[in-house]
Amino acid sequence: MADYHVSKPHRMARVGHWDIETDVAVIGFGAAGACASLEAARSGASVVLFEAGAGSGGASALSGGEIYLGGGGGTPVQKAAGFEDSTEDLYQYLMMMGGPDADAAKVRRYADNSLAHYEWLVAQGIPYKGTYLPGKLVEPETDDTLILCGSEYAWPFNTRAKPVPRGHVIQFKGWGGGRLMMDIFEQRVREAGVDVRCSSRVLCLIADDDNTVHGLVVRIDGVERFVRARKGVILCAGGFVMNRDMVRRHAPLLLRSEDPIGATDDGSGILMGTSVGADTIHMDEYFCSVPWYPPESLVKGIFVNEQGQRFINEDGYHGRVMNMAFRQPGSKVYLLADNAIFGRPMEICRADVAAAGDTWAEVEQELGMGAGSLTATVDVYNRHAAEGCDPLFHKEAEWLKPLTEGPFAAIEFRAGYSFYAHFTLGGLNTLPSGEVLDRIGQPIAGLYAAGRTTCGLPRWGLGYSSGTSLADCTFFGRQAGASAAKRQA
Amino acid sequence: MADYHVSKPHRMARVGHWDIETDVAVIGFGAAGACASLEAARSGASVVLFEAGAGSGGASALSGGEIYLGGGGGTPVQKAAGFEDSTEDLYQYLMMMGGPDADAAKVRRYADNSLAHYEWLVAQGIPYKGTYLPGKLVEPETDDTLILCGSEYAWPFNTRAKPVPRGHVIQFKGWGGGRLMMDIFEQRVREAGVDVRCSSRVLCLIADDDNTVHGLVVRIDGVERFVRARKGVILCAGGFVMNRDMVRRHAPLLLRSEDPIGATDDGSGILMGTSVGADTIHMDEYFCSVPWYPPESLVKGIFVNEQGQRFINEDGYHGRVMNMAFRQPGSKVYLLADNAIFGRPMEICRADVAAAGDTWAEVEQELGMGAGSLTATVDVYNRHAAEGCDPLFHKEAEWLKPLTEGPFAAIEFRAGYSFYAHFTLGGLNTLPSGEVLDRIGQPIAGLYAAGRTTCGLPRWGLGYSSGTSLADCTFFGRQAGASAAKRQA
Repeated sequence: MADYHVSKPHRMARVGHWDIETDVAVIGFGAAGACASLEAARSGASVVLFEAGAGSGGASALSGGEIYLGGGGGTPVQKAAGFEDSTEDLYQYLMMMGGPDADAAKVRRYADNSLAHYEWLVAQGIPYKGTYLPGKLVEPETDDTLILCGSEYAWPFNTRAKPVPRGHVIQFKGWGGGRLMMDIFEQRVREAGVDVRCSSRVLCLIADDDNTVHGLVVRIDGVERFVRARKGVILCAGGFVMNRDMVRRHAPLLLRSEDPIGATDDGSGILMGTSVGADTIHMDEYFCSVPWYPPESLVKGIFVNEQGQRFINEDGYHGRVMNMAFRQPGSKVYLLADNAIFGRPMEICRADVAAAGDTWAEVEQELGMGAGSLTATVDVYNRHAAEGCDPLFHKEAEWLKPLTEGPFAAIEFRAGYSFYAHFTLGGLNTLPSGEVLDRIGQPIAGLYAAGRTTCGLPRWGLGYSSGTSLADCTFFGRQAGASAAKRQA
Repeated sequence: MADYHVSKPHRMARVGHWDIETDVAVIGFGAAGACASLEAARSGASVVLFEAGAGSGGASALSGGEIYLGGGGGTPVQKAAGFEDSTEDLYQYLMMMGGPDADAAKVRRYADNSLAHYEWLVAQGIPYKGTYLPGKLVEPETDDTLILCGSEYAWPFNTRAKPVPRGHVIQFKGWGGGRLMMDIFEQRVREAGVDVRCSSRVLCLIADDDNTVHGLVVRIDGVERFVRARKGVILCAGGFVMNRDMVRRHAPLLLRSEDPIGATDDGSGILMGTSVGADTIHMDEYFCSVPWYPPESLVKGIFVNEQGQRFINEDGYHGRVMNMAFRQPGSKVYLLADNAIFGRPMEICRADVAAAGDTWAEVEQELGMGAGSLTATVDVYNRHAAEGCDPLFHKEAEWLKPLTEGPFAAIEFRAGYSFYAHFTLGGLNTLPSGEVLDRIGQPIAGLYAAGRTTCGLPRWGLGYSSGTSLADCTFFGRQAGASAAKRQA
């Protein structure tokens, strides 16, 4: 039996026969693969979709089914809730969210077409009730469908883009609407005539000596099958968070957490891409968060590191705050709360009260911090909070309150213990069309990719906002499907 | 004319003739390439060394010619200065220096052979006077040859490895001994019969369809020449700091500084490696520093970020302190000094006094910091410094002094203005033998690499110590040369 490996393309010259022939082959049945398949099939291409797992879903099914949408005056959901949104504000926010190497071409394409993408999602059957659930929350416990899911209202984001909620959550009571979203996508995919092959592990790409991609080798029922994809292969196989060896080589700090969020995100999509010369970028970036609110009152608390210092404005998205927390010197951070705002974070967080006292000095001592360190931080914070400002980190006035009503508590979040859920943001460099670029910056013929196999809209851990990964998966999945279908091979 | 690119190997089938035939071809005439050539030639191989620049040197010639050496009881230089050093302490220090994904195999090989490597360097003619110049300094202004060049005596390094100076500087009066070191290496290289071709830009590797490397295409006097390397090609072409597009894709924060340290470090070595399937690791890591001491008295000062907070023990290596400074929120950090310790950093730093006052409160106000923020930091520091301890960051007692003697000053270091010299640490994943690994973890036949084209001993910005890059270049350059020479192709 031949020795196949995702990192080595099988060469065309060694292919004796084709077991399956199709126009487009899609690898991975998460949101990106589903949307890529749909667009390709509806463009008239025959499509075979291979999924290593037993059914559809991927990491998308583990999500809340929240998609970051807006612009163009506002989606019907935003408008129904009384919000106006502009394409330029959406563009500016996404550029800030993308960090120091935001992809202006992708952000532009997305911002200009976000409203149309909303209509497309609705046309697929994704239900939106159109009601807004205000407040700082992770996913709605209700079936409301618009939430605030990023750092829009927080400094520095609010200085460059008018803030507005953009988290469009599928109508579903409670957490976990991503599964319902994938069920709906699956129905559409099957109706569109896509040939779905689950429990089918793709082993490697098939490429000629110039790395033009012609198909793939897949193992189905224990047998290697040769698949010809006349127009192209689309990699939608997720990121690499479950491949802990790759994590060690690219983002080793993440090994301190045992809570990767992934399905079959084993890096195979990225490795198949690099096997034919694709470029990888920002492999060190990741989403990493403990959902420390609700209760929302805790946002009025302050986070400090082991040195007793604050490190960020606490009113940003939890993923921004905790990404910064994860990078602090030492392994622990503490959320300081007085009696007026105290509440317990969700049990899932594994965040316990590490110290309590009638004065902050007692808390400081119980935490073993240098005398005067924590108390100085609280004193400075309280002094300015009383005047409605935060000169250090620019937390907004509505979240500022002196922490003066004892007893006082420090809630501990520790890397290696608390629920630092994480997934990777680095991956293949692609065009907005989904074409995969080689290291010269040229598209690799016959190869497309979308979702977390690529480095997409979200690519900077400190900017990540909820729903931007699914926005990227669904929208750029569609672009990749349409591009592949129209390719003249 | 054929269209060559470093990221695409020229395929064997398209090679019509060979212009040059050799056993081993080395790309790059810095320290790594020189040492690789020497070992290969002395092992009996014919060697051609290609250098894109007009002469030998590379980034190595821009350095101080400082090599990190020790272990085995101590080098003669260490012993002459009264220091004992153990192989295990050297091993432990280098493992900490390598950060969360330190390469234990390389560190073990280096620690066990560092003493022998010292003897080898001496045998090449590198002069060491054998005198120790104590203190916190960057390079000696004198011709002394042993200095402290890392964070050995600072927390947390001193908790796991007995500290000792290991910076072996070539005997040379003043800064810049790297040029002399390269002149000596060049003499040895020419004596060994290596065929040196300067002003010769390697365009791409030549490989067969399985990516076994057989040679390279080089442009000499405007003409493309086909070079057969029967035993192997050794990539010693430096890192990618001068390729600002690659920097943007892998370490975008560095674009805030216009002070890359590099010669022809354009990433071409790394790209030639990946063109035949090599793996790259830790591409986001870098050395980045402003040499803020001397004057040594400033080490008794404290660094604060724009929030007025300390962020590290200031008694570590300047490259560790400033790497952390570069990552702080905002673009500026301030070094706080009282009248007793004040001195001006070297002019090269571009670090000016941003504020001064008779009280720290005046300094705080002049810097526009929140009232009470900077003063709280100084108060807490002073309170503990008076007792000889630093509970926040564990600065050693000898550098602790309350900053109480006015007038007081804040010296500003700003990204985008100050001299944040930097170079890249990520690169090809290699074995201690110099063999380049593909993404499966298998050696690529016929391909070797050393120096900053690889991810070597130094691979973590917060651990970097001076002399570890040249240690890596010279020692693992030798390993690569010996490995290539003995390969049976």
